[in-house]
Amino acid sequence: MTDSALRLRVIVETPAYWRAVFDSPPFNIVDAAMFQGLQDLLARMDADPSLRVVVFDSANPEFYLSHFDLTGKIGNIMTAVGPSGLPILVDTFVRLTKSPVVSIAKIRGCVRGVSSEFVLACDMRFAALENTRLGQPEVGVGLHPGGGGAERLPRLVGRGRALEIVLGASDFDGDTAARYGYVNRALPDAELDGFVDVLARRIASFDRRAIAAAKSLVNQVSLPPADQLLEALTSFQTALTWPEAQQRVQALLKRGLQRDVDFENRWPTVLDTLLETR
Amino acid sequence: MTDSALRLRVIVETPAYWRAVFDSPPFNIVDAAMFQGLQDLLARMDADPSLRVVVFDSANPEFYLSHFDLTGKIGNIMTAVGPSGLPILVDTFVRLTKSPVVSIAKIRGCVRGVSSEFVLACDMRFAALENTRLGQPEVGVGLHPGGGGAERLPRLVGRGRALEIVLGASDFDGDTAARYGYVNRALPDAELDGFVDVLARRIASFDRRAIAAAKSLVNQVSLPPADQLLEALTSFQTALTWPEAQQRVQALLKRGLQRDVDFENRWPTVLDTLLETR
Amino acid sequence: MTDSALRLRVIVETPAYWRAVFDSPPFNIVDAAMFQGLQDLLARMDADPSLRVVVFDSANPEFYLSHFDLTGKIGNIMTAVGPSGLPILVDTFVRLTKSPVVSIAKIRGCVRGVSSEFVLACDMRFAALENTRLGQPEVGVGLHPGGGGAERLPRLVGRGRALEIVLGASDFDGDTAARYGYVNRALPDAELDGFVDVLARRIASFDRRAIAAAKSLVNQVSLPPADQLLEALTSFQTALTWPEAQQRVQALLKRGLQRDVDFENRWPTVLDTLLETR
Repeated sequence: MTDSALRLRVIVETPAYWRAVFDSPPFNIVDAAMFQGLQDLLARMDADPSLRVVVFDSANPEFYLSHFDLTGKIGNIMTAVGPSGLPILVDTFVRLTKSPVVSIAKIRGCVRGVSSEFVLACDMRFAALENTRLGQPEVGVGLHPGGGGAERLPRLVGRGRALEIVLGASDFDGDTAARYGYVNRALPDAELDGFVDVLARRIASFDRRAIAAAKSLVNQVSLPPADQLLEALTSFQTALTWPEAQQRVQALLKRGLQRDVDFENRWPTVLDTLLETR
Repeated sequence: MTDSALRLRVIVETPAYWRAVFDSPPFNIVDAAMFQGLQDLLARMDADPSLRVVVFDSANPEFYLSHFDLTGKIGNIMTAVGPSGLPILVDTFVRLTKSPVVSIAKIRGCVRGVSSEFVLACDMRFAALENTRLGQPEVGVGLHPGGGGAERLPRLVGRGRALEIVLGASDFDGDTAARYGYVNRALPDAELDGFVDVLARRIASFDRRAIAAAKSLVNQVSLPPADQLLEALTSFQTALTWPEAQQRVQALLKRGLQRDVDFENRWPTVLDTLLETR
Repeated sequence: MTDSALRLRVIVETPAYWRAVFDSPPFNIVDAAMFQGLQDLLARMDADPSLRVVVFDSANPEFYLSHFDLTGKIGNIMTAVGPSGLPILVDTFVRLTKSPVVSIAKIRGCVRGVSSEFVLACDMRFAALENTRLGQPEVGVGLHPGGGGAERLPRLVGRGRALEIVLGASDFDGDTAARYGYVNRALPDAELDGFVDVLARRIASFDRRAIAAAKSLVNQVSLPPADQLLEALTSFQTALTWPEAQQRVQALLKRGLQRDVDFENRWPTVLDTLLETR
């Protein structure tokens, strides 16, 4: 198996129902290899006429998928283009939304920044009540969401809650995320696997043409236009060059990001004191 | 009274407040006669300058309005055009949304498919907590929503929950429907009539011009464009010709749809096993 | 201090975090002077590069900001234009939404009509569970929302709930407002100040460029276009000339509006009997 295939393992539950499991210890950091895994999976999804639904799961209950690698291992995902003609980062999420195959994010643990944008690009999101930590902390790092979060959240949760999520840069637990509409539902951890499995098998029993036509109609009134997604990414690339952003990123890494499990779990809580020890 | 007038009885509570009661035993199936009843009502609504509000109610607490007749009695509602120039099915719902008269759906029991699309075309929806079963089960029958459900739901509940409703093809109870925004509120059955009656009489006491102007402003930012509604209907007509859809419809009828009250109550629960006994 | 500066006092908590306090006894009625206070504040906000966030608060826990002055003291806010080229009423709200500075409404007490439209133009809204009375009662006065309520509410709460709020013309308490998405959250009164203060100080610690870029991206997919806001205002000005509206306004003033504290607190409850004593 390639490195990417190891990081995103595909389990064929039935020909119509796959599970894709993020498994990149220790934190399921999102780097170029993880995006390659998603691109490979999208190619397999496109090629398989039996497939109806993919559930995105994590091998690590503390870190569903944590956040962008901030040590530089993101390769060319913002510059090289994918099959849609959009940069890989945007291409991956746009193709997921437009795929005739249904995508379901089953969430436990930390899901921040680009990872939140990944679950927002899934067709549905179900989260554990007990330990979900979902958020867009970019503004607290001197940046802003660049992978669709700013475009998808307002349609799901309204402008006021989208601004609270994006400008407050805090974690949202499962209950609040469900009340806001950030996720479809929050369920007790013990019920989450069963609920999602029943839903996925049910969808897997339906006809591919019916699923594709229904999803396409919903998409027409609910997806953000590609030019807005591109503008956000371009703006994000500019923000990465801002000295204040670089300073905050360095402060986070110095404090333990991507090294210390305790800090990795709770880092959005310190964003308002990040520059105090300069 | 005509057959249609019997199926949709109009009770004039006051000159400004009418109740329209679905009363087509045993299940309040939606057929051509029911649409004729709605068209006749819309003509009466248009012609009466005293009217402010119509509450849509059901004579059958188990079946508010069940679903499209699947035995062929839907006449020409998808081909003949109504006063708006749109096919009768779309015309009925579009004229209801644009009417200067306010429409309120008071929901008890089963409301599936085209019936869900009817309540989505009403200005407001209030549901009983105890026995509401609301859903868009079309995909589970090899079809997809064709009467506006795919266009109206994402604006009300967001893309993720709209896809769960449409692709999952399950019933939603009153509490979940209210949490999702599918209905305005779910109330205990014993309080539902009182709540809706107070609201309807209140609106009925207001000025027609003020109501019409306010609704028109809200409509401008909230109604789906007619071309999207038409595209969904055209796609639905194509789907009706798909062999897999016809096979699923026949399986449903064979199992008891439109005949057996118990099956009629719970048929979405069996959609994932529909073709197993082939 | 000018009259306007007295009515909208600015408290500089830190260079990055101000509080603006409505303080126009006895009811915080919205008149031309209050709009002048908001215009002056917007000019100060535009001129200060240190500022990140303004919390809008009230000196009166019963009346956050009550409603438009109905005795004629609204000056030329609908005809004279502001810096954006839009009429002052629309200009004030549009500039607040587009400002690089974050605005947070911290709500206790009555917030009706144009005051509801003010909080809808703030970036976020947090309300006390115990005594919030939020609403758009214009239709019950023979008018309709003219300051953006009809354009902003459907995007926040969906068409059905927006029509319930606008056509029902009733007050909404904090809990219902939060369930509908009318406010971000409703918190116990004892927790409201602390929650908002922590959020405001957190945002105040972030970089101005990051905040501005993030808000701008969210705005692009969530703000109503200026022409729709203008159309609503024009329609509202016409409605003010309707005899039925003038009659209802006079009936309200006669019953105690803007004079009697008890009536001022509960006037939407009598809107359905307003013309009975003619």
